[in-house]
Amino acid sequence: MKDCVFCKIVSGEFPCYKIYEDDYTLAFLDIAGDCYGHTLVVPKKHCQNILDCDGETLARVTATVQKVAQHFVKCGFEGVNVLNANGACAEQSVFHLHVHVIPRAPQDGIEAWPFKDKHDFDMQSVCDRLTMCK
Amino acid sequence: MKDCVFCKIVSGEFPCYKIYEDDYTLAFLDIAGDCYGHTLVVPKKHCQNILDCDGETLARVTATVQKVAQHFVKCGFEGVNVLNANGACAEQSVFHLHVHVIPRAPQDGIEAWPFKDKHDFDMQSVCDRLTMCK
Repeated sequence: MKDCVFCKIVSGEFPCYKIYEDDYTLAFLDIAGDCYGHTLVVPKKHCQNILDCDGETLARVTATVQKVAQHFVKCGFEGVNVLNANGACAEQSVFHLHVHVIPRAPQDGIEAWPFKDKHDFDMQSVCDRLTMCK
Repeated sequence: MKDCVFCKIVSGEFPCYKIYEDDYTLAFLDIAGDCYGHTLVVPKKHCQNILDCDGETLARVTATVQKVAQHFVKCGFEGVNVLNANGACAEQSVFHLHVHVIPRAPQDGIEAWPFKDKHDFDMQSVCDRLTMCK
């Protein structure tokens, strides 16, 4: 995809700090600097996000996420957060599927769970609207 | 797994607000009430998280996450966040693999990206420590 920054990283036109690569996926450090070791896993084949991604590509991305997560634990981390945004209103900023892999350690100061408020939803009506089991 | 709350939901011992089910996975509403439509996708087969999950199970969980995300868009949402925690220090609270699927809409008031601070990491040294490309 012309003008896709992650396609340019995949092709080598733009440099990256490479963490892992195979025939279908690439993992590299996010340069945003928001947390230590923040890594992005992307498919080499362009798709926007998980909403339009083919199943095989998504499975390969997930397999790489798992490999990177397991590797981070071998590197001395004790946990990993996996985050992914799909759509502008979900705070996706680059429209090439990417999964954030965040290595975690005790007392690292990160609070990865973003939801702090509690609401009193009518769960049955939420379920009635959203269920696929009808 | 005895004493695993998600195994009890999978077996039917505990009730849930079911969103999707197939032979290998189950999706149900999280009752924490932290955001509308907050759904958990779990494998029926017990594993702790992506660090110990077998590849086939993880691929099936991911396929269900995609199905649920695509369904939420069909239900009128415009985006989806996918979140997953692995390990106590990554804020995992139930030790049965689960992926959070959060339906998103414009101006829904959610800020799903939890990292606000910026740091000046030496990216090359981070990469030298974490890369699998040696």
